[in-house]
Amino acid sequence: MKARLIESLNAKQATIGIVGLGYVGLPLLLRYCEVGYKVVGFDIDRDKVDKLLAGKSYIEHIPDNSVARAIEQGFDATTDFSRASEVDALILCVPTPLNKYREPDLSFVMNTVEALAPHMRQGQIVSLESTTYPGTTDEELRPRIERFGHTIGEDIFLVFSPEREDPGNANFTTNTIPKVCGGCTPNCLEAGMALYGQVIDQVVPVSSTRAAELTKLLENIHRAVNIGLVNEMKIVADKMGIDIHEVIRAAATKPFGFVAYYPGPGLGGHCIPIDPFYLTWKAREFGVHTRFIELAGEINSSMPDYVISKITSALNAVRKSIAGSKILVLGIAYKKNVDDMRESPSVALMERLRDLGAEIAYSDPHIPAFPKMRDHSFDLKSVSLTAETLASYDCVLLATDHDRFDYEMISKHSQLIVDSRGRYLEPSSHIVKA
Amino acid sequence: MKARLIESLNAKQATIGIVGLGYVGLPLLLRYCEVGYKVVGFDIDRDKVDKLLAGKSYIEHIPDNSVARAIEQGFDATTDFSRASEVDALILCVPTPLNKYREPDLSFVMNTVEALAPHMRQGQIVSLESTTYPGTTDEELRPRIERFGHTIGEDIFLVFSPEREDPGNANFTTNTIPKVCGGCTPNCLEAGMALYGQVIDQVVPVSSTRAAELTKLLENIHRAVNIGLVNEMKIVADKMGIDIHEVIRAAATKPFGFVAYYPGPGLGGHCIPIDPFYLTWKAREFGVHTRFIELAGEINSSMPDYVISKITSALNAVRKSIAGSKILVLGIAYKKNVDDMRESPSVALMERLRDLGAEIAYSDPHIPAFPKMRDHSFDLKSVSLTAETLASYDCVLLATDHDRFDYEMISKHSQLIVDSRGRYLEPSSHIVKA
Repeated sequence: MKARLIESLNAKQATIGIVGLGYVGLPLLLRYCEVGYKVVGFDIDRDKVDKLLAGKSYIEHIPDNSVARAIEQGFDATTDFSRASEVDALILCVPTPLNKYREPDLSFVMNTVEALAPHMRQGQIVSLESTTYPGTTDEELRPRIERFGHTIGEDIFLVFSPEREDPGNANFTTNTIPKVCGGCTPNCLEAGMALYGQVIDQVVPVSSTRAAELTKLLENIHRAVNIGLVNEMKIVADKMGIDIHEVIRAAATKPFGFVAYYPGPGLGGHCIPIDPFYLTWKAREFGVHTRFIELAGEINSSMPDYVISKITSALNAVRKSIAGSKILVLGIAYKKNVDDMRESPSVALMERLRDLGAEIAYSDPHIPAFPKMRDHSFDLKSVSLTAETLASYDCVLLATDHDRFDYEMISKHSQLIVDSRGRYLEPSSHIVKA
Repeated sequence: MKARLIESLNAKQATIGIVGLGYVGLPLLLRYCEVGYKVVGFDIDRDKVDKLLAGKSYIEHIPDNSVARAIEQGFDATTDFSRASEVDALILCVPTPLNKYREPDLSFVMNTVEALAPHMRQGQIVSLESTTYPGTTDEELRPRIERFGHTIGEDIFLVFSPEREDPGNANFTTNTIPKVCGGCTPNCLEAGMALYGQVIDQVVPVSSTRAAELTKLLENIHRAVNIGLVNEMKIVADKMGIDIHEVIRAAATKPFGFVAYYPGPGLGGHCIPIDPFYLTWKAREFGVHTRFIELAGEINSSMPDYVISKITSALNAVRKSIAGSKILVLGIAYKKNVDDMRESPSVALMERLRDLGAEIAYSDPHIPAFPKMRDHSFDLKSVSLTAETLASYDCVLLATDHDRFDYEMISKHSQLIVDSRGRYLEPSSHIVKA
């Protein structure tokens, strides 16, 4: 059974099912189409499925014509999970957020697996790509599949292979980013290597699903902790009258032993603020603590308050209060040059400023109107930046430093700029670093 | 005065004084000789001065013939600090350790400056290279020089330019490592750029001595925190039955956003365990805390205890205690492939094991006999590794993984190996990871 599956994967004759068609699933789906596989996309969101079937993309950096080309190559999309039996591989790319108590919320993964499992059949491979704690694949997915009479490693093969998508990164594409893969059994790993071998340039095997799960967490813990560290260093340097951005740039000239991370107004995106706490939660089961993760979380989540305090004192210096001031937020995506607003610290800043009585506006070349979000609501459209509009705000907060902004023009016409990204290198009386 | 100094530096006609002829001063001195400057070396240690004048090196990775060549080129060394008046530049490369309360011990810097200052003369440049807290150059050195009637920036020029030596790093030499430089005044910086411009490929100017001081601290804080993080992750992974070294290797295949740091038996060397606390101490003056540094210090300094606990349970599994066991420590240098024992965690481990009643021996191809150290004493010579000697120990502790060790032979003949460096990749019944 394993041999036949591997053979059809290697020959690109297998049909690939991608479950969850978001920032991770969609690029992966297009990649499988590109190399010649037949692909079926699954999503619970009818809207997404309809758009794809109409040849439209809903992600800024993925052009419509990539989707149209996939359709020409026979790509199909559906909300009907019973069609899982049609495919040879099921690759799960669903979200793994935190609940409001900062605990793992595996409901998307569990609901997906429970919807698919009754329709799984012998000779299939299942791969989980969603970031999660060590043990999820083996302890949660495996029994839910075996309940239907299958034996993992014998008639169904189960692997964990974490996604490493980096939206907006122009240097790498899905296939040029090496992909880690761990199997529940040696047979599973072998099938997993074949599953990804034709679409990813380098597949990196590890000894277990747990090792693969921790690999992804370590990558994001590393980032969260390093960003936490420079955020703390920013506060210390500011007190000492030193510009942390200058120091980081100077340290980055060391050709070994140092890597630059930059401070900001808080963590954003669907990975860095969330993933580390999956390990924190699981570690409790073993009686161990993840103190670096906790400290990074604490410092990073305090950064919006730090920025607010800088705005308060900058306005105070010109005898104004936040209440009643007109404040323009530049950049509401969670990082530069993308349209992704998940966990964006800009939104937290906008809410705090609004609660404090400011009149809020925003400008973001990637986000023409403030979108509907689960927990946030602003009835705003992106302000276009002109000399007159800039001059009309009491304060301009640079929250996300998109390359498309005209920084010279912004500096020239703004009354007061609070720069949370260190974009302005030279000291200036109307620019405050935050 | 500035113009004449810069001219003579650019023309390599200036005489350079290097003060402190250790791991930092000696390579820098040789580099100045190499490009054709006349150099005078200053040290309070007559023994070092005599050795150099006899054409001998006392640092393993610096060969005697480099010193001999410098002497041919007119290099001189002295213990007489009054000869400071002979030189055009004074570059201070003295140690900056911590006292036993983990506070900065600037006594070497202060004693050096006070010994030199009466002999300083107009038109000289003074550069401090020792790692220290932001403000040292401006608050401590400047007044000690100006007390003798000089004005910094007018008749004497003062800069801070942190050393970035990495003994044992074969990829970089003194001149290929970019060098950061900050001046007390713009004139000072200009002179500093000329001082290093002929011997270092890239000199990186920053806006102040404080920025330069913090740059060096940030580099080492970054390392201390990242090592602390992976040490904590090692403990968590171990509890979950996952090999952290496998996970780090897998994560390191990510081509962006992750940099591999490796866990170990504790921090060593003269930089990483010490430097960060210089910032911690200074930050208190400003009412801010350096919590990442404190946490890294706590976790890193607990690693020897972690290793001891692993040895205890590994011996216990074969019904032995540490007391009475013969334990061989492999590698006593603080990092691999060097002979430098400063702050080596191996020494802390040897002391704890001895205190617990073990019979201790060591083997280190770089250190033939246990040297005289300020706070540590072992009357031991390096054991040569043979099948018979290895087999005679109850436990072999791999503390520093020098490349010169024959790991296969060690594995074959040892009864029990405790590997604190992740050198042994494959699981084996007689190898315990610590």
